[in-house]
Amino acid sequence: MGGLTFIDLRDRYGITQLKISPENLDEQTPQEVITYTKREYVVQVSGSVIERQSKNSNLPTGEIEIEVYNFGHLNTSITPPFTIEDETDGGDELRMKYRYLDLRRNIVRKNLELRHRLAIETRNYLDKLNFLEVETPVLIKSTPEGARDFVVPSRVHEGEFYALPQSPQTFKQLLMVSGFDRYYQIVKCFRDEDLRADRQPEFTQIDCEMSFVEQEDILQTFEGLTRHLFKTVKGIDIPTLPRMTYADAMKYYGNDKPDTRFEMKFVELNGVVKGKNFKVFDDAGLVVGICAKGAAEYTRKQLDELTEFVKRPQIGATGLVYARFNADGTLKSSVDKFYNEEELKKWAATFNAQPGDLMLVLAGEENKTRKALSELRLEMGSRLGLRDKNKFSCLWVIDFPLLEWNEGDTNLLESLRGRWVAKHHPFTSPKAEDVALLNTNPGTVRANAYDIVINGVEIGGGSIRIHNKELQAKMFEVLGFTKEEAQNQFGFLMNAFEFGAPPHGGIAFGFDRLCSMFGGADSIRDFIAFPKNNSARDVMIDSPSEISEEQLNELHILVKKEEKKI
Amino acid sequence: MGGLTFIDLRDRYGITQLKISPENLDEQTPQEVITYTKREYVVQVSGSVIERQSKNSNLPTGEIEIEVYNFGHLNTSITPPFTIEDETDGGDELRMKYRYLDLRRNIVRKNLELRHRLAIETRNYLDKLNFLEVETPVLIKSTPEGARDFVVPSRVHEGEFYALPQSPQTFKQLLMVSGFDRYYQIVKCFRDEDLRADRQPEFTQIDCEMSFVEQEDILQTFEGLTRHLFKTVKGIDIPTLPRMTYADAMKYYGNDKPDTRFEMKFVELNGVVKGKNFKVFDDAGLVVGICAKGAAEYTRKQLDELTEFVKRPQIGATGLVYARFNADGTLKSSVDKFYNEEELKKWAATFNAQPGDLMLVLAGEENKTRKALSELRLEMGSRLGLRDKNKFSCLWVIDFPLLEWNEGDTNLLESLRGRWVAKHHPFTSPKAEDVALLNTNPGTVRANAYDIVINGVEIGGGSIRIHNKELQAKMFEVLGFTKEEAQNQFGFLMNAFEFGAPPHGGIAFGFDRLCSMFGGADSIRDFIAFPKNNSARDVMIDSPSEISEEQLNELHILVKKEEKKI
Repeated sequence: MGGLTFIDLRDRYGITQLKISPENLDEQTPQEVITYTKREYVVQVSGSVIERQSKNSNLPTGEIEIEVYNFGHLNTSITPPFTIEDETDGGDELRMKYRYLDLRRNIVRKNLELRHRLAIETRNYLDKLNFLEVETPVLIKSTPEGARDFVVPSRVHEGEFYALPQSPQTFKQLLMVSGFDRYYQIVKCFRDEDLRADRQPEFTQIDCEMSFVEQEDILQTFEGLTRHLFKTVKGIDIPTLPRMTYADAMKYYGNDKPDTRFEMKFVELNGVVKGKNFKVFDDAGLVVGICAKGAAEYTRKQLDELTEFVKRPQIGATGLVYARFNADGTLKSSVDKFYNEEELKKWAATFNAQPGDLMLVLAGEENKTRKALSELRLEMGSRLGLRDKNKFSCLWVIDFPLLEWNEGDTNLLESLRGRWVAKHHPFTSPKAEDVALLNTNPGTVRANAYDIVINGVEIGGGSIRIHNKELQAKMFEVLGFTKEEAQNQFGFLMNAFEFGAPPHGGIAFGFDRLCSMFGGADSIRDFIAFPKNNSARDVMIDSPSEISEEQLNELHILVKKEEKKI
Repeated sequence: MGGLTFIDLRDRYGITQLKISPENLDEQTPQEVITYTKREYVVQVSGSVIERQSKNSNLPTGEIEIEVYNFGHLNTSITPPFTIEDETDGGDELRMKYRYLDLRRNIVRKNLELRHRLAIETRNYLDKLNFLEVETPVLIKSTPEGARDFVVPSRVHEGEFYALPQSPQTFKQLLMVSGFDRYYQIVKCFRDEDLRADRQPEFTQIDCEMSFVEQEDILQTFEGLTRHLFKTVKGIDIPTLPRMTYADAMKYYGNDKPDTRFEMKFVELNGVVKGKNFKVFDDAGLVVGICAKGAAEYTRKQLDELTEFVKRPQIGATGLVYARFNADGTLKSSVDKFYNEEELKKWAATFNAQPGDLMLVLAGEENKTRKALSELRLEMGSRLGLRDKNKFSCLWVIDFPLLEWNEGDTNLLESLRGRWVAKHHPFTSPKAEDVALLNTNPGTVRANAYDIVINGVEIGGGSIRIHNKELQAKMFEVLGFTKEEAQNQFGFLMNAFEFGAPPHGGIAFGFDRLCSMFGGADSIRDFIAFPKNNSARDVMIDSPSEISEEQLNELHILVKKEEKKI
């Protein structure tokens, strides 16, 4: 610009404009500066901060610029493989491989700054309440009663292994036995799972435990933490958290982590629709629906999309029945052959539908149908714009079942198939009034367990723990452990309960998810500095990788070459 | 006491006296309370806090007691295996096995409270300086160029392994390349070493890195952190840290982490003692001694003890020569046959000794002799009461050598024997003026590396890093990497340097050691909640341990049964 040159200088704090003019440069010409400076070069500049003539109110630094006296290079750069801007042309794989360049982008950097802020405010809150941060060990013992452990071969102890913790659970309980009545830790945990978009093999928890408490104390304390974080980090006042039993969550939302930013509760229709010769409904264990406000004018195409949606294998419904409550008061359904308008009026009354609403109904085996309708509900919430990322709806889900039957979860060892497994973990206390059911009907035992749910995401969960040796032993028995297995794996904890263990309980927040929730994102990946991809690989450093024979020998292990799939 | 009963109630905050009298108890008699309450029971009490009649000024709660209305039990306890008091009758092994009971002892609990406090103040200081806490991954890649890695077999990627980080070194450097100009983390690190008293397989670092800095910026910033911690946690003002070159530390203290709480510097005697027909001195590469102030009256027995001390295999001297400068001004040595009083006067002048001092002299191969004399100096410091745990002497040791020759360090892989290894790590920058020596005389190259030393303990260390691909490649070449090995293991870092890497450097503090230093202890073990023993075993949970065939199969590994030493 007429002898003048402008350069945008980016650092961690933003963009600053450099003004380079011939009369101010000490030793160079602007031409020299331009010729030898390219994108992403690292420069050292001295000059004066001056007021900018043409201000840019979109930039925090848009009112000033730097009049440069001296301009030097600290390092050069080759051309980056993608543009380092908010809207980048780099694909996922490329940005993962060059993560250190992706981290230069404002939006990714801001995610990590948010994470830092959340960690600070978590500590501030807990420190003030006299929680002690205590580090628990990372090299522990393999006790794969839940998900799979990552293990670490020992060089010193031939044939033996450490395991990485899935959580510091037993250690924080031991700290309670030790009299550390309030513990917390922001801590890495590890789970060898098949990954989904929002899971990583290593993840971070805000892990907490308290002694001399009942469930109510924990709910109050960590509702307080949640409110503190929303207030200090986002300036939002969160109302008192509603509480919903697990049973109600399943009944009204088909989901133990309901998205309560919008209503659209489940309405059961068995009493209304049966006996009208519609075989699908007559044969179904459950006929259940939702009422989508103002969606009566959905087109045929939109309704077909919804039908396709619920018929996807991962949703698993066999079909979708709909009934429009038209604005003119008439009613029209996809099953008019079986239900006349009079019948449909009964539907509408049951749904509490108004003219303009659309009723969507699924039928089939109870649990599967609830699960499918839950997905449809979320889909309709999204389609109707009811899931605003800037709105936050928090609640407690309480009274979880203690146990669930493992039909064959692929994230558990094969040997746990066809057994009761702990819904939360084996240290969760059953409700006192349900203990007797452990012998007669384990599946109906409720636990003193609770989850904190925000916008349909389980952000944290915890429980009151067993603190009595006999009850803990009983629990292991129900889970199918022999006495020897229980003693071998968890003897240290059961023994500890004999030396004056106080009542205690706690909670753990998924810190990665909390960050992505606060950042308004669906995936946790961009809130982790160096994440792994969906096959648990770090493509930047290329890990995991082979290790040397010398290392294998020292660790007393061999790699078992199976039918290689090359 | 005449119908009254007193019970000491212990919680995390101290001891409180309960006063149990018949007239105040609601439903029980004191006799009932006593009969059913034993040591370590967990109790719930309601009552009034009242002023104590016989006050105990030794207890923070010694002026009050609780007049009990209601007394209940929350849990019972069997008799603990050792007494839970400051002075316990439990041996090390027993206390490790029942660590959760050991943690009930005041002194151990206070250590962990100190640790928490140090972590908070570290974060306060760094947060104020705009350092961002960023979590780096724990499942990384094995690059055993230094100590041995712990590795983690991958289930998904057959025959491949993750490694646990010995430090977040490469990741924090990548963060600098990303423009995160100030990073820190209080982070677990892992090293598969043969253990000593002050080492653990997992340990915690305060890990920091800064961009656009030179060595001086780092020294100032972290001298500030050190001063902040002493001030806020111990109320001590630390003077400006002196700086000592590595060369001087070795010359005057025989040690790169000199204990400077006391002087007693090395004095070289080659020019004074040679040529007097004393073969030991004449043949020695170095004759060097220390002057122990006021120790001239040491008895024969004490001197014999010192001689035995230096002749221990781990010290390795062949003998000790002494010369007393008696209070009456006469001089007497263990080598009077070779050195008359006139000669000894020359010694005294060289030592700058005064009447009443004791001169202690070792001779032999230079490096071994310095090392032995360093141990003797520390021993004399202890004997003369010069190593007060409540006095703190901090300094920087700077200008470390870049490389050292590995004769056969058992903490390194066998394959690294007979090679140059990095003194600090392979990313440390050589001094600009010494770079040319990399080709001609690598052992003399000095690094931009520094350690912070307190009372003879290396509390932290760091360096300015290489930020240039060619220099980093050269460094790997000197360390004996082929181009392919360097690219395979560290290609991601060298590539990153091509995209505009800023000059950067950092430091890491050993957090466990820092805590034990502040706590006035020699071992780090009691500042770790759940430490491992000297063979890297957690005796409480009995880890490492065997894992199931099912787990081994899923991980594609076999345990190699070698000649079992049963």
